[in-house]
Amino acid sequence: MNTYDSEQRNPSAQRVALIIQYIGTKYNGWQRQPIGRTIQGEIETALASATNKPVTIYGAGRTDAGVHAAAQVAHFNYIGPIPPHKWAKILNSRLPEGILIRASAQVPNDWHACFSASWRRYRYTIYTDKLPNLFVKSVSWHYYRAPLDETAIQQALDPLVGKHELSAFRRTGSNRKHSWVDVQVAQCYRQNSFLHLEIQADGFLYGMMRLLVGLLIEVGVGNLSPTSFTELWQNRQREKVKYSAPAKGLCLLRVGYPVFPFSPEIWFDTQPTYVLAP
Amino acid sequence: MNTYDSEQRNPSAQRVALIIQYIGTKYNGWQRQPIGRTIQGEIETALASATNKPVTIYGAGRTDAGVHAAAQVAHFNYIGPIPPHKWAKILNSRLPEGILIRASAQVPNDWHACFSASWRRYRYTIYTDKLPNLFVKSVSWHYYRAPLDETAIQQALDPLVGKHELSAFRRTGSNRKHSWVDVQVAQCYRQNSFLHLEIQADGFLYGMMRLLVGLLIEVGVGNLSPTSFTELWQNRQREKVKYSAPAKGLCLLRVGYPVFPFSPEIWFDTQPTYVLAP
Repeated sequence: MNTYDSEQRNPSAQRVALIIQYIGTKYNGWQRQPIGRTIQGEIETALASATNKPVTIYGAGRTDAGVHAAAQVAHFNYIGPIPPHKWAKILNSRLPEGILIRASAQVPNDWHACFSASWRRYRYTIYTDKLPNLFVKSVSWHYYRAPLDETAIQQALDPLVGKHELSAFRRTGSNRKHSWVDVQVAQCYRQNSFLHLEIQADGFLYGMMRLLVGLLIEVGVGNLSPTSFTELWQNRQREKVKYSAPAKGLCLLRVGYPVFPFSPEIWFDTQPTYVLAP
Repeated sequence: MNTYDSEQRNPSAQRVALIIQYIGTKYNGWQRQPIGRTIQGEIETALASATNKPVTIYGAGRTDAGVHAAAQVAHFNYIGPIPPHKWAKILNSRLPEGILIRASAQVPNDWHACFSASWRRYRYTIYTDKLPNLFVKSVSWHYYRAPLDETAIQQALDPLVGKHELSAFRRTGSNRKHSWVDVQVAQCYRQNSFLHLEIQADGFLYGMMRLLVGLLIEVGVGNLSPTSFTELWQNRQREKVKYSAPAKGLCLLRVGYPVFPFSPEIWFDTQPTYVLAP
């Protein structure tokens, strides 16, 4: 019986949820790995250091190496004297650069960061000026080979909304049994030098967001019509989705729950957008 | 006779200007030092590696350790076959993370990055939300102990415009002979979670911008009236200016010249402002 199982069955165990921000640049993704520093691994190490025993955390979504999070959500179980709201401070003092706990709070013992989530929302940021800019380099994809038509991209995005089989945008390597995704929001918007793509869905397939952006770029430059884009995923033509957009432009923006103990200023849109003079 | 002198007198020498962006976080400031990595030092090392001889560069302004630059300007002299516009690419391939040459161009042999400049403009960014935010941590000062009244700050800034003796905002350690500064622009503006202070002047005293922001915070929280602020610097009360705002909120935004070979998209306002949902 491991620590998690025993605590889960203990009625005095508290379940604590965390809102986590991270700059993914120097990490090997969310999920704990045998080799390399990961967000989950670093937080579990900090928790173990604070509690003197191993603690497992459960995240709302597994982000790839290099992907950022504005408000990832995770939970863990704990038996002991530390009040739930104190964890943010306790962990931040033990966490390395680039990982920040924005808040912590108690949740019901049957609340689960992954399984209780109604939706996840990702934002992809594309920087379109010709010259590179260090101030946005780590959080955007610098794409300037050709102008991007955001109207065409939005036309390609519109039919995505709804429940669809999206195996065209799925990389191998996960054990999810099907590729049906309920897309709730699919938006493309420009702010001068920046093009943003935001997708909200009940869940995301492995690699989905980056494959989607990779193909939407083809629409944006005019190599693929919005209609062809739609036919391609409707016909599940995974072999025609060749390019995965770079990890550094992607950010897990927020996660939605029917029951959530955090106020919006803690978790809503905490990745800034960037404004450069036109 | 050192390399610089001999090249300066050589009529076939080219003078090359650079527009330089840097994230100052991991550097010991602009100016070359015996110990520690500096921006000037890294660029000179890159130039020496490209030319196989020592090269000195001259910057428009010396920024402190931790201060950023959106468009610092520097020049150097060069005799050889490399065309002036090629230097950006050549140097970027040899420069470490956090330093970027945005462009290079030939300038007249009597043009000087420091002495030909008409003005410098600095921006100081203050992040005022209670919760820390990793996405802006390295480029802003997180100040949330008390709300800041931007109207009062602007009232304190207005009388600064013009030519004034500002030794109240001068740290010891430079060999400049007087403390007269011609302030051309002094603005405070808020964008939701962010308060920005922008000052443009013919030149800046050593430590001036950070001492100014440190005292303006006292005005912003209501500890010092705009009138008292003005009296204080008019009476040269350096001893009453106690706090220097953190380096990481400061950015050398741009430098102005009567003659300048670069188009505005290369040097104008290349530090983004950051927008967070209200």
